Amino acid sequence: MKFKTEYLNFKTNSKHEFVNITSQVRQIIEESRVKEGLCLVNTMHISSSIFINDDEDGLHEDFEKWLEHLAPHYPIKQYRHNDTGEDNADAHLKRQIMGREVVIAITKGKLDFGPWEQIFYGEFDGQRNKKVLIKVIGE
Amino acid sequence: MKFKTEYLNFKTNSKHEFVNITSQVRQIIEESRVKEGLCLVNTMHISSSIFINDDEDGLHEDFEKWLEHLAPHYPIKQYRHNDTGEDNADAHLKRQIMGREVVIAITKGKLDFGPWEQIFYGEFDGQRNKKVLIKVIGE
Amino acid sequence: MKFKTEYLNFKTNSKHEFVNITSQVRQIIEESRVKEGLCLVNTMHISSSIFINDDEDGLHEDFEKWLEHLAPHYPIKQYRHNDTGEDNADAHLKRQIMGREVVIAITKGKLDFGPWEQIFYGEFDGQRNKKVLIKVIGE
Repeated sequence: MKFKTEYLNFKTNSKHEFVNITSQVRQIIEESRVKEGLCLVNTMHISSSIFINDDEDGLHEDFEKWLEHLAPHYPIKQYRHNDTGEDNADAHLKRQIMGREVVIAITKGKLDFGPWEQIFYGEFDGQRNKKVLIKVIGE
Repeated sequence: MKFKTEYLNFKTNSKHEFVNITSQVRQIIEESRVKEGLCLVNTMHISSSIFINDDEDGLHEDFEKWLEHLAPHYPIKQYRHNDTGEDNADAHLKRQIMGREVVIAITKGKLDFGPWEQIFYGEFDGQRNKKVLIKVIGE
Repeated sequence: MKFKTEYLNFKTNSKHEFVNITSQVRQIIEESRVKEGLCLVNTMHISSSIFINDDEDGLHEDFEKWLEHLAPHYPIKQYRHNDTGEDNADAHLKRQIMGREVVIAITKGKLDFGPWEQIFYGEFDGQRNKKVLIKVIGE
């Protein structure tokens, strides 16, 4: 049984950002030499997400607008979490919709993906140091 | 360590559809002869979902109405993704709520499920060829 | 390859409740003696969730209010599922937003977590007997 654990570091320039990490995950899988197995990719923070969707700028604008509609940042005082001095309650909600992690299949040494699948780090409370964990397990 | 990878093909008759795939997943797990392990089931497309919930028609109607309320298809021009010529931006949003994948436990050679758990393929942009990946890993 | 399967039992006092189960999961991982691997934690029921977020009471109030806004319990008759005699259709919807399961990494024998990650059982239709499955797989 083989294992490989890697961490990616992020500090985004803006508060919200979607970063395509597919090529980094693909490289870690190749380095692991796992031919058949699973790969877990999860954010280690609770105001960001890992998700799989399309790498299309228009769609990312739609996600941004939609998440703001479902879990608005303002007014900040609508959230009890923000009574603690934080202003990121909405980021904790947005992350639940977009998800914490993805689990992906490795087949014949490759990411077993459909034609449009791309892995994103979704930041909803950026300009802070964050980490993503990638764990490969298999044979 | 044992592995088994299978793909299911779908081309639904309607744009939206929920298809119960539990018996197919159960059969693949039995064929794998894995007694203890995990099974990943994921859609390989970005406008459909795999999720676990109740096999009850009324609930499926409720899901359909609820998702349409949270991420409406019309007006098509409200989404920047649809400026590309597509009309399926809403399907990409709906899929985030319902999820891309499920990971399920295999115990004593069986799907380790609660009394009501059933696995569904959720299509939000059907009448196209789609694939679902099933990966069994264990011993 | 090592495996460990455990079940936690819940019967919450109120209809809605968030229960921190991190220390129980941590103990099961230690008992498994798995040094490198994955741990699946899933609710075995379809009106409750497992999710990872902050252990902060204000945020839990925000989740409760937000989920009630996105998928209101009343009026009960707005949901076709409730025509079956149930009144928990909203719980099935809420669980889709919060998720069924989490998959977590085990590294050097420990839960490989970020500084604020905590695992919760989220109940949306309580006062009933429910079970959570924990499956450890690795070496």
